[in-house]
Amino acid sequence: MTLPDPSLPDPTPPAPTLPESPRPEPAPQEPFCDDLAAALAEAWAELRRGAADRRAAFHTPCLATVRADGTPSARTVVLRAAEEETATLRFHTDRRSAKVGEISDRPAVALHFYDPGRKIQLRVEGLARLHRDDPLAAAAWEATRPFSRACYRVPATPGEAIAAPLPAHLGPAQLGHAGQGEAGAENFAAVVVTLRSIEWLYLAARGHRRARFTRDGEIWEKTWLVP
Amino acid sequence: MTLPDPSLPDPTPPAPTLPESPRPEPAPQEPFCDDLAAALAEAWAELRRGAADRRAAFHTPCLATVRADGTPSARTVVLRAAEEETATLRFHTDRRSAKVGEISDRPAVALHFYDPGRKIQLRVEGLARLHRDDPLAAAAWEATRPFSRACYRVPATPGEAIAAPLPAHLGPAQLGHAGQGEAGAENFAAVVVTLRSIEWLYLAARGHRRARFTRDGEIWEKTWLVP
Repeated sequence: MTLPDPSLPDPTPPAPTLPESPRPEPAPQEPFCDDLAAALAEAWAELRRGAADRRAAFHTPCLATVRADGTPSARTVVLRAAEEETATLRFHTDRRSAKVGEISDRPAVALHFYDPGRKIQLRVEGLARLHRDDPLAAAAWEATRPFSRACYRVPATPGEAIAAPLPAHLGPAQLGHAGQGEAGAENFAAVVVTLRSIEWLYLAARGHRRARFTRDGEIWEKTWLVP
Repeated sequence: MTLPDPSLPDPTPPAPTLPESPRPEPAPQEPFCDDLAAALAEAWAELRRGAADRRAAFHTPCLATVRADGTPSARTVVLRAAEEETATLRFHTDRRSAKVGEISDRPAVALHFYDPGRKIQLRVEGLARLHRDDPLAAAAWEATRPFSRACYRVPATPGEAIAAPLPAHLGPAQLGHAGQGEAGAENFAAVVVTLRSIEWLYLAARGHRRARFTRDGEIWEKTWLVP
Protein backbone atom coordinates (compact mmCIF):
# COMPACT_ATOMS: atom_id res chain seq x y z
CA MET A 1 0.00 0.00 0.00
CA THR A 2 1.20 3.58 -0.54
CA LEU A 3 1.33 4.27 3.13
CA PRO A 4 3.19 6.98 4.96
CA ASP A 5 5.78 6.16 7.59
CA PRO A 6 4.69 8.18 10.60
CA SER A 7 8.22 8.32 11.92
CA LEU A 8 9.34 10.26 8.86
CA PRO A 9 8.67 13.86 7.92
CA ASP A 10 5.54 14.64 5.99
CA PRO A 11 5.91 15.40 2.32
CA THR A 12 4.29 18.68 1.39
CA PRO A 13 0.55 18.10 1.14
CA PRO A 14 -1.07 19.23 -2.10
CA ALA A 15 -2.29 22.82 -2.05
CA PRO A 16 -6.08 23.02 -1.68
CA THR A 17 -7.80 23.95 -4.92
CA LEU A 18 -10.72 26.36 -5.14
CA PRO A 19 -14.06 24.83 -6.18
CA GLU A 20 -13.95 26.56 -9.58
CA SER A 21 -10.35 25.60 -10.32
CA PRO A 22 -9.68 22.73 -12.71
CA ARG A 23 -8.35 19.72 -10.83
CA PRO A 24 -4.54 19.81 -11.17
CA GLU A 25 -2.84 16.99 -12.99
CA PRO A 26 -0.85 14.76 -10.63
CA ALA A 27 2.89 15.42 -10.77
CA PRO A 28 4.77 12.91 -12.92
CA GLN A 29 6.16 9.99 -10.95
CA GLU A 30 9.82 9.07 -11.08
CA PRO A 31 10.37 5.93 -13.19
CA PHE A 32 11.62 4.00 -10.13
CA CYS A 33 8.31 4.44 -8.33
CA ASP A 34 6.71 1.34 -9.79
CA ASP A 35 9.70 -0.72 -10.84
CA LEU A 36 11.76 -2.59 -8.26
CA ALA A 37 14.78 -3.05 -10.53
CA ALA A 38 14.77 0.68 -11.31
CA ALA A 39 14.52 1.45 -7.61
CA LEU A 40 17.56 -0.71 -6.84
CA ALA A 41 19.49 0.93 -9.68
CA GLU A 42 18.50 4.34 -8.31
CA ALA A 43 19.72 3.36 -4.84
CA TRP A 44 23.13 2.42 -6.23
CA ALA A 45 23.27 5.62 -8.29
CA GLU A 46 22.62 7.62 -5.11
CA LEU A 47 25.34 5.71 -3.27
CA ARG A 48 27.87 6.33 -6.05
CA ARG A 49 26.93 10.01 -6.04
CA GLY A 50 27.39 10.06 -2.28
CA ALA A 51 30.91 8.67 -2.61
CA ALA A 52 31.89 11.07 -5.41
CA ASP A 53 30.26 14.35 -4.37
CA ARG A 54 31.24 15.78 -1.00
CA ARG A 55 28.19 18.05 -1.05
CA ALA A 56 25.74 15.17 -1.52
CA ALA A 57 23.63 14.24 1.49
CA PHE A 58 24.69 10.62 1.02
CA HIS A 59 28.35 11.63 1.43
CA THR A 60 28.02 11.47 5.22
CA PRO A 61 25.95 8.49 6.36
CA CYS A 62 25.51 7.37 9.93
CA LEU A 63 27.30 4.16 10.88
CA ALA A 64 25.62 2.12 13.61
CA THR A 65 27.58 -0.53 15.48
CA VAL A 66 26.99 -2.49 18.67
CA ARG A 67 29.33 -2.31 21.65
CA ALA A 68 30.48 -5.27 23.73
CA ASP A 69 27.84 -4.36 26.34
CA GLY A 70 25.09 -4.61 23.71
CA THR A 71 24.33 -0.89 23.42
CA PRO A 72 24.19 0.81 20.01
CA SER A 73 26.72 3.40 18.89
CA ALA A 74 26.13 5.79 15.99
CA ARG A 75 28.34 8.37 14.29
CA THR A 76 28.97 10.06 10.95
CA VAL A 77 31.40 8.49 8.51
CA VAL A 78 32.41 9.70 5.06
CA LEU A 79 31.44 7.44 2.18
CA ARG A 80 34.57 6.92 0.07
CA ALA A 81 33.45 4.27 -2.44
CA ALA A 82 30.29 2.47 -3.57
CA GLU A 83 30.76 -0.49 -5.91
CA GLU A 84 27.68 -2.22 -7.22
CA GLU A 85 29.58 -5.16 -8.78
CA THR A 86 30.95 -6.29 -5.42
CA ALA A 87 28.04 -4.88 -3.37
CA THR A 88 30.48 -2.96 -1.19
CA LEU A 89 30.77 0.43 0.46
CA ARG A 90 34.00 1.82 1.90
CA PHE A 91 34.87 4.40 4.52
CA HIS A 92 38.07 5.23 6.39
CA THR A 93 38.82 5.53 10.05
CA ASP A 94 41.55 5.87 12.61
CA ARG A 95 42.71 2.49 13.94
CA ARG A 96 42.63 3.92 17.44
CA SER A 97 38.94 4.88 17.30
CA ALA A 98 36.31 2.97 19.28
CA LYS A 99 34.47 1.82 16.17
CA VAL A 100 37.44 -0.31 15.11
CA GLY A 101 37.07 -2.47 18.21
CA GLU A 102 33.31 -2.62 17.80
CA ILE A 103 33.60 -3.73 14.17
CA SER A 104 36.21 -6.34 15.07
CA ASP A 105 33.96 -7.81 17.72
CA ARG A 106 30.65 -7.50 15.86
CA PRO A 107 31.08 -7.03 12.13
CA ALA A 108 27.34 -6.75 11.40
CA VAL A 109 26.80 -3.01 10.89
CA ALA A 110 24.12 -0.67 9.61
CA LEU A 111 24.60 2.44 7.49
CA HIS A 112 21.84 5.00 7.35
CA PHE A 113 21.53 7.58 4.57
CA TYR A 114 18.89 10.29 4.47
CA ASP A 115 18.49 13.10 1.98
CA PRO A 116 15.92 15.55 3.38
CA GLY A 117 15.83 17.48 0.09
CA ARG A 118 15.06 14.48 -2.09
CA LYS A 119 13.15 12.68 0.70
CA ILE A 120 15.04 9.46 0.14
CA GLN A 121 16.27 7.17 2.90
CA LEU A 122 18.51 4.14 2.52
CA ARG A 123 18.99 1.64 5.31
CA VAL A 124 21.94 -0.53 4.40
CA GLU A 125 23.17 -3.53 6.36
CA GLY A 126 26.14 -5.78 5.89
CA LEU A 127 29.36 -7.20 7.26
CA ALA A 128 32.25 -4.83 7.83
CA ARG A 129 35.85 -5.83 7.34
CA LEU A 130 38.86 -3.86 8.53
CA HIS A 131 41.79 -3.37 6.19
CA ARG A 132 45.15 -2.46 7.72
CA ASP A 133 48.55 -2.91 6.12
CA ASP A 134 47.15 -4.71 3.10
CA PRO A 135 46.99 -3.70 -0.58
CA LEU A 136 43.44 -2.32 -0.26
CA ALA A 137 44.43 -0.12 2.68
CA ALA A 138 47.56 1.02 0.85
CA ALA A 139 45.58 1.99 -2.25
CA ALA A 140 43.03 3.86 -0.15
CA TRP A 141 45.81 5.70 1.68
CA GLU A 142 47.48 6.62 -1.62
CA ALA A 143 44.24 8.26 -2.80
CA THR A 144 43.89 10.27 0.42
CA ARG A 145 44.42 14.02 0.22
CA PRO A 146 47.18 15.69 2.28
CA PHE A 147 44.59 17.43 4.42
CA SER A 148 42.92 14.14 5.31
CA ARG A 149 46.25 12.50 6.08
CA ALA A 150 46.91 15.06 8.77
CA CYS A 151 44.09 13.53 10.78
CA TYR A 152 46.05 10.34 11.25
CA ARG A 153 49.27 12.03 12.44
CA VAL A 154 47.96 13.16 15.75
CA PRO A 155 49.73 11.38 18.63
CA ALA A 156 46.57 10.93 20.73
CA THR A 157 43.68 8.50 20.83
CA PRO A 158 40.41 9.82 19.39
CA GLY A 159 37.75 10.01 22.10
CA GLU A 160 40.27 10.20 24.95
CA ALA A 161 39.49 12.73 27.68
CA ILE A 162 41.71 15.83 27.70
CA ALA A 163 41.92 18.80 30.05
CA ALA A 164 41.43 21.48 27.39
CA PRO A 165 41.26 21.92 23.63
CA LEU A 166 44.72 22.56 22.25
CA PRO A 167 45.67 25.85 20.61
CA ALA A 168 44.90 26.41 16.95
CA HIS A 169 48.48 25.98 15.74
CA LEU A 170 48.14 22.23 16.34
CA GLY A 171 44.98 22.04 14.21
CA PRO A 172 44.59 19.91 11.11
CA ALA A 173 45.25 22.71 8.63
CA GLN A 174 48.77 23.20 9.96
CA LEU A 175 49.48 19.49 10.25
CA GLY A 176 48.15 19.05 6.74
CA HIS A 177 50.65 21.50 5.31
CA ALA A 178 53.61 20.04 7.12
CA GLY A 179 54.52 17.92 4.11
CA GLN A 180 55.09 14.78 6.12
CA GLY A 181 54.22 12.45 3.25
CA GLU A 182 53.48 8.99 4.57
CA ALA A 183 53.32 9.92 8.24
CA GLY A 184 50.01 8.84 9.69
CA ALA A 185 49.62 5.68 7.59
CA GLU A 186 50.26 3.60 10.69
CA ASN A 187 46.95 4.85 12.13
CA PHE A 188 44.88 4.52 8.96
CA ALA A 189 42.31 1.82 8.30
CA ALA A 190 39.89 1.28 5.43
CA VAL A 191 36.59 -0.41 6.24
CA VAL A 192 34.73 -2.29 3.52
CA VAL A 193 31.11 -3.24 4.15
CA THR A 194 29.73 -6.06 2.03
CA LEU A 195 26.01 -5.50 1.79
CA ARG A 196 23.39 -8.05 2.69
CA SER A 197 20.38 -5.77 2.36
CA ILE A 198 19.28 -2.33 1.21
CA GLU A 199 16.01 -0.84 2.30
CA TRP A 200 14.90 2.08 0.18
CA LEU A 201 12.24 4.61 1.15
CA TYR A 202 11.04 7.41 -1.08
CA LEU A 203 8.61 9.92 0.39
CA ALA A 204 6.37 11.26 -2.34
CA ALA A 205 3.18 13.22 -1.83
CA ARG A 206 1.50 11.00 -4.42
CA GLY A 207 2.34 7.83 -2.51
CA HIS A 208 5.37 6.70 -0.55
CA ARG A 209 7.51 3.87 -1.85
CA ARG A 210 9.42 1.43 0.32
CA ALA A 211 11.29 -1.62 -0.93
CA ARG A 212 13.73 -4.16 0.45
CA PHE A 213 16.57 -5.65 -1.55
CA THR A 214 18.28 -8.70 -0.07
CA ARG A 215 21.42 -10.13 -1.57
CA ASP A 216 21.64 -13.86 -2.12
CA GLY A 217 24.91 -14.62 -3.89
CA GLU A 218 24.89 -12.61 -7.13
CA ILE A 219 21.13 -12.10 -6.98
CA TRP A 220 19.23 -9.28 -5.33
CA GLU A 221 15.81 -10.39 -4.15
CA LYS A 222 13.40 -7.46 -4.36
CA THR A 223 10.10 -6.76 -2.68
CA TRP A 224 7.85 -3.81 -1.98
CA LEU A 225 7.12 -3.09 1.66
CA VAL A 226 4.33 -1.25 3.43
CA PRO A 227 5.93 2.21 3.90
CA MET B 1 44.22 18.55 21.47
CA THR B 2 42.53 20.25 18.51
CA LEU B 3 42.63 17.15 16.43
CA PRO B 4 40.62 16.24 13.37
CA ASP B 5 38.41 13.18 13.30
CA PRO B 6 39.45 11.36 10.14
CA SER B 7 36.06 9.73 9.84
CA LEU B 8 34.41 13.11 9.38
CA PRO B 9 34.49 15.47 6.42
CA ASP B 10 37.28 17.98 6.21
CA PRO B 11 36.46 21.55 7.09
CA THR B 12 37.59 23.98 4.44
CA PRO B 13 41.31 24.58 4.91
CA PRO B 14 42.38 28.22 5.15
CA ALA B 15 43.27 29.84 1.84
CA PRO B 16 47.04 30.06 1.33
CA THR B 17 48.36 33.60 1.75
CA LEU B 18 50.94 35.16 -0.54
CA PRO B 19 54.34 35.88 1.04
CA GLU B 20 53.76 39.64 0.82
CA SER B 21 50.25 39.51 2.25
CA PRO B 22 49.74 40.48 5.86
CA ARG B 23 48.88 37.39 7.89
CA PRO B 24 45.08 37.26 8.13
CA GLU B 25 43.52 37.52 11.55
CA PRO B 26 42.10 34.20 12.67
CA ALA B 27 38.32 34.01 12.29
CA PRO B 28 36.53 34.67 15.55
CA GLN B 29 35.73 31.48 17.43
CA GLU B 30 32.23 30.70 18.59
CA PRO B 31 31.95 31.29 22.35
CA PHE B 32 31.27 27.59 22.95
CA CYS B 33 34.64 26.59 21.50
CA ASP B 34 36.53 26.94 24.76
CA ASP B 35 33.77 26.66 27.33
CA LEU B 36 32.25 23.29 28.19
CA ALA B 37 29.13 24.76 29.80
CA ALA B 38 28.54 26.93 26.73
CA ALA B 39 29.03 23.90 24.49
CA LEU B 40 26.38 21.93 26.43
CA ALA B 41 23.99 24.88 26.26
CA GLU B 42 24.63 25.12 22.52
CA ALA B 43 23.88 21.41 22.12
CA TRP B 44 20.52 21.83 23.84
CA ALA B 45 19.75 24.93 21.79
CA GLU B 46 20.40 22.92 18.62
CA LEU B 47 18.15 20.11 19.86
CA ARG B 48 15.32 22.53 20.64
CA ARG B 49 15.74 24.11 17.21
CA GLY B 50 15.62 20.63 15.68
CA ALA B 51 12.32 19.90 17.39
CA ALA B 52 10.76 23.24 16.44
CA ASP B 53 12.02 23.80 12.89
CA ARG B 54 11.17 21.16 10.32
CA ARG B 55 13.84 22.54 7.99
CA ALA B 56 16.61 22.17 10.57
CA ALA B 57 19.10 19.35 10.01
CA PHE B 58 18.52 18.22 13.59
CA HIS B 59 14.80 17.72 12.85
CA THR B 60 15.49 14.27 11.43
CA PRO B 61 18.05 12.35 13.48
CA CYS B 62 18.97 8.73 13.02
CA LEU B 63 17.74 6.36 15.72
CA ALA B 64 19.93 3.30 16.31
CA THR B 65 18.52 0.30 18.14
CA VAL B 66 19.68 -3.28 18.58
CA ARG B 67 17.62 -6.26 17.42
CA ALA B 68 17.08 -9.45 19.37
CA ASP B 69 19.80 -11.12 17.26
CA GLY B 70 22.31 -8.44 18.31
CA THR B 71 22.50 -6.59 14.97
CA PRO B 72 22.10 -2.83 14.79
CA SER B 73 19.15 -1.15 13.11
CA ALA B 74 19.13 2.53 12.06
CA ARG B 75 16.43 4.76 10.61
CA THR B 76 15.27 8.37 10.47
CA VAL B 77 12.88 9.64 13.11
CA VAL B 78 11.39 13.10 13.51
CA LEU B 79 12.41 14.98 16.63
CA ARG B 80 9.19 16.27 18.25
CA ALA B 81 10.43 17.67 21.56
CA ALA B 82 13.70 18.42 23.38
CA GLU B 83 13.44 19.32 27.05
CA GLU B 84 16.60 20.28 28.87
CA GLU B 85 15.00 20.29 32.35
CA THR B 86 14.10 16.59 32.14
CA ALA B 87 16.96 15.69 29.76
CA THR B 88 14.50 14.10 27.37
CA LEU B 89 13.89 13.90 23.64
CA ARG B 90 10.63 12.70 22.09
CA PHE B 91 9.65 11.18 18.76
CA HIS B 92 6.56 9.36 17.53
CA THR B 93 6.11 6.03 15.86
CA ASP B 94 3.59 3.45 14.75
CA ARG B 95 3.04 0.77 17.39
CA ARG B 96 3.25 -1.85 14.67
CA SER B 97 6.74 -0.83 13.53
CA ALA B 98 9.78 -3.02 14.22
CA LYS B 99 11.47 -0.38 16.36
CA VAL B 100 8.74 -0.66 19.00
CA GLY B 101 9.68 -4.27 19.68
CA GLU B 102 13.38 -3.43 19.62
CA ILE B 103 12.91 -0.61 22.14
CA SER B 104 10.79 -2.80 24.38
CA ASP B 105 13.46 -5.49 24.44
CA ARG B 106 16.50 -3.21 24.61
CA PRO B 107 15.67 0.33 25.72
CA ALA B 108 19.26 1.61 25.43
CA VAL B 109 19.22 3.60 22.18
CA ALA B 110 21.43 6.07 20.33
CA LEU B 111 20.33 9.13 18.40
CA HIS B 112 22.69 10.66 15.88
CA PHE B 113 22.39 14.24 14.64
CA TYR B 114 24.59 15.76 11.96
CA ASP B 115 24.36 19.17 10.38
CA PRO B 116 26.69 19.24 7.36
CA GLY B 117 26.20 22.98 6.93
CA ARG B 118 27.18 23.92 10.46
CA LYS B 119 29.56 20.93 10.80
CA ILE B 120 28.10 19.92 14.14
CA GLN B 121 27.47 16.33 15.20
CA LEU B 122 25.65 15.20 18.32
CA ARG B 123 25.76 11.61 19.51
CA VAL B 124 23.09 11.18 22.12
CA GLU B 125 22.46 8.05 24.17
CA GLY B 126 19.80 7.17 26.66
CA LEU B 127 16.96 4.92 27.70
CA ALA B 128 13.82 4.93 25.57
CA ARG B 129 10.37 4.48 27.02
CA LEU B 130 7.24 3.76 25.02
CA HIS B 131 4.06 5.67 25.78
CA ARG B 132 0.77 4.14 24.65
CA ASP B 133 -2.68 4.96 26.03
CA ASP B 134 -1.32 7.21 28.75
CA PRO B 135 -1.62 10.98 29.30
CA LEU B 136 1.71 11.72 27.61
CA ALA B 137 0.70 9.76 24.49
CA ALA B 138 -2.73 11.44 24.50
CA ALA B 139 -1.19 14.92 24.69
CA ALA B 140 1.27 14.09 21.90
CA TRP B 141 -1.57 12.75 19.74
CA GLU B 142 -3.63 15.87 20.39
CA ALA B 143 -0.80 18.04 19.08
CA THR B 144 -0.45 15.96 15.91
CA ARG B 145 -1.50 17.55 12.63
CA PRO B 146 -4.27 15.95 10.53
CA PHE B 147 -1.77 15.05 7.83
CA SER B 148 0.43 13.17 10.32
CA ARG B 149 -2.58 11.35 11.80
CA ALA B 150 -3.35 9.81 8.45
CA CYS B 151 -0.15 7.78 8.77
CA TYR B 152 -1.59 5.82 11.66
CA ARG B 153 -4.89 4.95 9.95
CA VAL B 154 -3.46 2.55 7.45
CA PRO B 155 -4.69 -1.00 8.05
CA ALA B 156 -1.32 -2.64 7.31
CA THR B 157 1.86 -3.29 9.23
CA PRO B 158 4.78 -1.00 8.33
CA GLY B 159 7.61 -3.02 6.81
CA GLU B 160 5.37 -5.89 5.70
CA ALA B 161 6.03 -7.27 2.22
CA ILE B 162 3.43 -6.41 -0.41
CA ALA B 163 3.01 -7.37 -4.05
CA ALA B 164 2.87 -3.84 -5.45
CA PRO B 165 2.65 -0.23 -4.32
CA LEU B 166 -0.97 0.81 -4.04
CA PRO B 167 -2.50 3.50 -6.26
CA ALA B 168 -2.13 7.15 -5.33
CA HIS B 169 -5.72 7.62 -4.16
CA LEU B 170 -4.84 5.62 -1.03
CA GLY B 171 -1.88 7.93 -0.27
CA PRO B 172 -1.48 9.96 2.91
CA ALA B 173 -2.74 13.22 1.43
CA GLN B 174 -6.14 11.72 0.73
CA LEU B 175 -6.33 9.87 4.04
CA GLY B 176 -5.25 13.06 5.76
CA HIS B 177 -8.17 15.02 4.37
CA ALA B 178 -10.75 12.40 5.23
CA GLY B 179 -11.59 14.18 8.49
CA GLN B 180 -11.58 11.02 10.54
CA GLY B 181 -10.69 12.79 13.77
CA GLU B 182 -9.33 10.33 16.29
CA ALA B 183 -8.98 7.38 13.92
CA GLY B 184 -5.41 6.11 14.03
CA ALA B 185 -4.78 6.84 17.69
CA GLU B 186 -4.84 3.12 18.40
CA ASN B 187 -1.61 2.74 16.38
CA PHE B 188 0.18 5.79 17.77
CA ALA B 189 3.02 5.70 20.26
CA ALA B 190 5.23 8.43 21.69
CA VAL B 191 8.79 7.49 22.59
CA VAL B 192 10.63 9.50 25.23
CA VAL B 193 14.39 9.06 25.51
CA THR B 194 15.95 10.07 28.82
CA LEU B 195 19.51 11.03 28.05
CA ARG B 196 22.54 9.57 29.76
CA SER B 197 25.15 11.20 27.57
CA ILE B 198 25.66 13.72 24.81
CA GLU B 199 28.78 13.78 22.72
CA TRP B 200 29.27 17.00 20.82
CA LEU B 201 31.63 17.49 17.88
CA TYR B 202 32.23 20.78 16.12
CA LEU B 203 34.40 20.76 13.03
CA ALA B 204 36.17 24.08 12.73
CA ALA B 205 39.09 24.85 10.48
CA ARG B 206 40.81 26.58 13.41
CA GLY B 207 40.60 23.45 15.54
CA HIS B 208 37.94 20.81 16.04
CA ARG B 209 36.12 20.59 19.35
CA ARG B 210 34.77 17.40 20.86
CA ALA B 211 33.23 17.09 24.29
CA ARG B 212 31.31 14.51 26.27
CA PHE B 213 28.52 15.34 28.69
CA THR B 214 27.41 12.57 31.02
CA ARG B 215 24.38 12.94 33.22
CA ASP B 216 24.63 11.93 36.85
CA GLY B 217 21.33 12.79 38.52
CA GLU B 218 20.79 16.50 38.03
CA ILE B 219 24.43 17.11 37.19
CA TRP B 220 26.06 16.97 33.77
CA GLU B 221 29.70 15.96 33.98
CA LYS B 222 31.65 17.62 31.19
CA THR B 223 34.96 16.84 29.58
CA TRP B 224 36.84 17.66 26.41
CA LEU B 225 37.80 14.72 24.21
CA VAL B 226 40.45 14.22 21.57
CA PRO B 227 38.43 14.94 18.37
